[in-house]
Amino acid sequence: MVTGVNMAFKVIKENVLKANDNTASVIRESMKKSKTLMINIISSPGAGKTTLIEKIPPMLKDAGISFAVLTGDCFTSNDATRIDKAGAQVIQINTGNSCHIDAGFIKKAISEINMDGLDLLIVENVGNLVCPAEFDIGEDCKIVILSIPEGDDKPKKYPLVFTESELVLLNKVDLLGHLPFDIDECIKNIQGVNSKAPIIKISSLKGDGIDEFIGWITKRINIKKER
Amino acid sequence: MVTGVNMAFKVIKENVLKANDNTASVIRESMKKSKTLMINIISSPGAGKTTLIEKIPPMLKDAGISFAVLTGDCFTSNDATRIDKAGAQVIQINTGNSCHIDAGFIKKAISEINMDGLDLLIVENVGNLVCPAEFDIGEDCKIVILSIPEGDDKPKKYPLVFTESELVLLNKVDLLGHLPFDIDECIKNIQGVNSKAPIIKISSLKGDGIDEFIGWITKRINIKKER
Repeated sequence: MVTGVNMAFKVIKENVLKANDNTASVIRESMKKSKTLMINIISSPGAGKTTLIEKIPPMLKDAGISFAVLTGDCFTSNDATRIDKAGAQVIQINTGNSCHIDAGFIKKAISEINMDGLDLLIVENVGNLVCPAEFDIGEDCKIVILSIPEGDDKPKKYPLVFTESELVLLNKVDLLGHLPFDIDECIKNIQGVNSKAPIIKISSLKGDGIDEFIGWITKRINIKKER
Repeated sequence: MVTGVNMAFKVIKENVLKANDNTASVIRESMKKSKTLMINIISSPGAGKTTLIEKIPPMLKDAGISFAVLTGDCFTSNDATRIDKAGAQVIQINTGNSCHIDAGFIKKAISEINMDGLDLLIVENVGNLVCPAEFDIGEDCKIVILSIPEGDDKPKKYPLVFTESELVLLNKVDLLGHLPFDIDECIKNIQGVNSKAPIIKISSLKGDGIDEFIGWITKRINIKKER
């Protein structure tokens, strides 16, 4: 087995992360003032982040929750176009070849939206299970989406994002039965790296479980407001 | 829209990539001497890299191709265990929280295998569509796997890996019809960023298209040997 990280690169990375953390603290302080819950949604490419975010605007509106979306993508603004059509205030963040959103991107993006009275800020990170987990962007919590076609072993292989997340969404449950996926094994693997996070089974496409997700968000917004 | 990259980070990244390129050149020279074709397989998590590599050892043996596998994962050695069982010489590369394999990992790993008379070295990169595309590891060619559940828009959203690849494998075609995926649109999106790469439709799980992939590899090995 080959392991080990180049030391020079490790030091550089630590410095980059430290600078990022300083900006994240400023963002966190500003979210505390406006009492806005900021959630950072992370998943592999194509796990269903945008489809989920397209689905929820009417339900958030029904629940009396005011919200905005920052959506990250390397190059296109396809996601912002889709989310805008779904009726949400949205800012597209283009990271270029950067594989994650860092706090600097968020700082710029929130200067372009009206935060007054905003209950919820949803950040859709770049599709990647590794790097986004390492970058604090000033969020209240990370939410990881794992989709059924990715396989039940992923929590073991990409543990950091699962350990760091306050909620796990198991998406595309409508595909169970069409591919090899042991849901009990998957839940065991999630709980092996994070015993606290609730797991909600959803289908962004068909709508299953979305009401439970909205319930979780509503409760989490109230916790933030009471602090 | 928010864009832009922190300049200090950009300079640091350029230096890291330059040091990586030097090591990659040494690896490329060594592969030239041994006339070994080195392929770098890249995809999202769960797109089917390991399942594909598990499938091909008997077919490569039948074709008289000697081969070895270097498999990358952040933490576990699950993939190496699976590939070893399938009858391939395999080395596990654990990258820790690093989101890609760099040339340094490959240099260490190939010092542990016998390269004499090796026709093919298969590298399974970390599951990530962004960062692995940026790091030259001394390979002859990159191969990208896109799986149907990820969606037909991914070549537009993660263009670099598609532009850089000599072959595109469209995996999990057995799921077509069970989810929204326009295969003509997908092919158009691939050809929009790379008009040259052939596209092979496969199912790593069911076996469809794998013979065509072996045919492509055989031809590519012969091209390398004739150079």
